[in-house]
Amino acid sequence: MPSRANLILDNLAKKYELLKKQTSHNALGADTAEALIDVVQYSLKFLSQCNQIPLHSSVPGKDYFAFAAKKKGGKISRAVNKNLFASDTAKKLEKVFSKTLSDLPLAERERFLYTVAISYCCAVDLLKTGDQKTPATFFECLIGHLFARAFGVNPRTQVEVLRLEEESSTLPTDFIFDLGTAKPKFHIPVKTSTRERVIQVFAHQRVLDGVHGFGKFTGILVCLTETKLNHDTKEVIEICLPKQWVLYQRFIAPMKRFYYFDIPKKYAGLALGDPPMAVMSFAKFFDEAKDLMAGR
Amino acid sequence: MPSRANLILDNLAKKYELLKKQTSHNALGADTAEALIDVVQYSLKFLSQCNQIPLHSSVPGKDYFAFAAKKKGGKISRAVNKNLFASDTAKKLEKVFSKTLSDLPLAERERFLYTVAISYCCAVDLLKTGDQKTPATFFECLIGHLFARAFGVNPRTQVEVLRLEEESSTLPTDFIFDLGTAKPKFHIPVKTSTRERVIQVFAHQRVLDGVHGFGKFTGILVCLTETKLNHDTKEVIEICLPKQWVLYQRFIAPMKRFYYFDIPKKYAGLALGDPPMAVMSFAKFFDEAKDLMAGR
Repeated sequence: MPSRANLILDNLAKKYELLKKQTSHNALGADTAEALIDVVQYSLKFLSQCNQIPLHSSVPGKDYFAFAAKKKGGKISRAVNKNLFASDTAKKLEKVFSKTLSDLPLAERERFLYTVAISYCCAVDLLKTGDQKTPATFFECLIGHLFARAFGVNPRTQVEVLRLEEESSTLPTDFIFDLGTAKPKFHIPVKTSTRERVIQVFAHQRVLDGVHGFGKFTGILVCLTETKLNHDTKEVIEICLPKQWVLYQRFIAPMKRFYYFDIPKKYAGLALGDPPMAVMSFAKFFDEAKDLMAGR
Repeated sequence: MPSRANLILDNLAKKYELLKKQTSHNALGADTAEALIDVVQYSLKFLSQCNQIPLHSSVPGKDYFAFAAKKKGGKISRAVNKNLFASDTAKKLEKVFSKTLSDLPLAERERFLYTVAISYCCAVDLLKTGDQKTPATFFECLIGHLFARAFGVNPRTQVEVLRLEEESSTLPTDFIFDLGTAKPKFHIPVKTSTRERVIQVFAHQRVLDGVHGFGKFTGILVCLTETKLNHDTKEVIEICLPKQWVLYQRFIAPMKRFYYFDIPKKYAGLALGDPPMAVMSFAKFFDEAKDLMAGR
């Protein structure tokens, strides 16, 4: 087993490196789509040969499982939402990535996207120890590609900040999409989970609002999930701070969208709060991308 | 050695737990001062029996060393600023903590405070593995005690946030000192180092400014150091983002003071920047506490 796992890890690492390279070179390109398909396909193939063990879900209305290495007492993956994981995703990859995602019915699109996003993360959980970095980067590549395709432009990862006196300064960010003169600009932070770090998202938006004026940058948070798995008790919880979010939205800077692959109920409820906060399934982005691009 | 180290760790853990308890019970009390003295004295005694190994400092004008376990190939502590570590601190503890710190000459006060703050952190570095939490909490207890004594009130760690409609909400923070009606209130984040997490400090200040109005809360960051030690190469660097700080100060919320125990040169330079940012040695706080309390 160890040598086989090492071989799989080596192959996956090469595919991952190629994806990173293609995304930074041309996120909206067909080569990036191909590299993405390759990483996901390989991850799903590996996962299909692993066991699935049930987890104790403390999240009302949601069931979770984890992938587990066949070897007894081996590692287990992060929590996977049972209703959102579609095991037939591998064979749809080529087809779906070659056309627009809005052609897929919403529920199917939701499961497709969740399965794609979680695949590499789970594979790495089983093949490596303590690697938080490459799943986060993979997730950024996925989001970078999907937004770049929808918007028809490649992202940047820093913003120029105007200064009157000296050399201009820059603010490092997650993704910035600039659709051109007199068209919307988007500030798109991407996180596999936010927890207490979410305040950075609003604070970056605040700097952009302050430097460039209100409404110049549309803020869109994209997040995979807020689940946390206790590896000893096998309990899955969601870590949510809805009251903090309301404070940040009101007093730091408003974000236009909060897209989740696996929406926490407590955040979904903020859509009916004061102020209403647009927390929704990421799958819906593909239905409203045109509206967002038109500044609506 | 292992059993002796375990015994020391057990004793230190008990003293630490007592300090935590006393601080949360009555941060400005004599019992807290005593518990603090006890932790520091015990830490310094342990450190005096350890080796000191030189480090490669990449920080211009500053020399650093690390404490090292006597056992060959054992652990080493975080970086310690050679000019700020005063080995005669242990015998001064009782005397200094029984009177006001402003009685000590500034340079001596600076070294005294640095040695007190770093003592427990270094001892834990050598006695435990991967413990970031208890040094951070120890540092909070120290700062909580010193500010509480200077201000004559105990801190809170959350702020009530006004809401028009529903039940009131709270914002968890580091320390809040409320000197009473029509007197200043202080928002005092405490960090052993900030790195990219510093944006939280400004964002919390922004929420307070937004909820309670500008100038109601005086923001004061207290930070130990920004050094980072590479344990393989023994190189010490300082991680500083001065251009980001300027953006945050201008566009998120202004902080009144940035106190350091070991001031990074790059941040000290911000005192002459635009806007000027008051980065200074924490030792100076004891000279200006009265001014701050008067809202100056």
